[in-house]
Amino acid sequence: MYLYLIRHGIAVEPDPLALDPMADDEARSLTKLGRKKVEQVADKLAKLDLKFELIITSPLVRAHQTTAIFIAKQLSPNLEVSPELKPSGNLVKWLQEWDARPTGTNITHLALCGHEPNLSEWAELLIYGQVCHKLILKKGGIIGLKFANDRIAIGTAQLWCLLPPKFII
Amino acid sequence: MYLYLIRHGIAVEPDPLALDPMADDEARSLTKLGRKKVEQVADKLAKLDLKFELIITSPLVRAHQTTAIFIAKQLSPNLEVSPELKPSGNLVKWLQEWDARPTGTNITHLALCGHEPNLSEWAELLIYGQVCHKLILKKGGIIGLKFANDRIAIGTAQLWCLLPPKFII
Repeated sequence: MYLYLIRHGIAVEPDPLALDPMADDEARSLTKLGRKKVEQVADKLAKLDLKFELIITSPLVRAHQTTAIFIAKQLSPNLEVSPELKPSGNLVKWLQEWDARPTGTNITHLALCGHEPNLSEWAELLIYGQVCHKLILKKGGIIGLKFANDRIAIGTAQLWCLLPPKFII
Repeated sequence: MYLYLIRHGIAVEPDPLALDPMADDEARSLTKLGRKKVEQVADKLAKLDLKFELIITSPLVRAHQTTAIFIAKQLSPNLEVSPELKPSGNLVKWLQEWDARPTGTNITHLALCGHEPNLSEWAELLIYGQVCHKLILKKGGIIGLKFANDRIAIGTAQLWCLLPPKFII
């Protein structure tokens, strides 16, 4: 089982004058450069034939737009949205959701698209069982985890790639 | 301070009939494919302008040949050899060697070329202070560590890239 953690691309800055900062943050969209870099990353993954059976995305606009580019580039036939991939999300709750799915889906390459510091914290939990804030995940970057079998569980992953976008594009 | 740990490229297999297995292992050279992939990795690093002030290599032929390709591609003006980068080498002893160098060399991008499982163990020691065998470093792959200042010390690094060669070439 391979799990890929994808950070959304470069997005517009938060509006410091927003009356509702949370709604403003949720609505931040990718910049032109952010969109272009995510497209280049997606093109490179397609060229390497690195595809997913499913991408689950944070519902926030910048993550959803990032995922939409991956879908448009045919890197995954399936897209789902999970609130646990929001910045306020929780790995243990997401794992409960994931484990509650019907078996037999045969997913061996799953991608999650979300935010920092969540994704690198999730990676450290899945690899080492604790958060140490030692992984640097750039916008548009990807963490690749490998599990010994088809179960995603805390403390059981190996890290096989940590890709800043400049190495992919 | 950035430290890059580079694993040698694909080499010929050990000779199971060798009378002196250690000498045989030390003499194993890169295969044609191994040489080609290392050249492609070096070309990509040059294109990204990711260069080093110094590469220190294991004296074993396959590592030395890998380093020679990096030097030929002008990724570093300086080459040194350290026995601590052999498979029998030791991070603490290498750190003692490194710390004993005259100050003022102003090295901010250092590369070490060696072997597994040593390099991924060294990376985990420098990042987390312990070896967990959770990093997968392919032949021709690169681990990139970032230190908060100009000192390389155990437990003080962040991991900013883990690059299987297929993502670089």
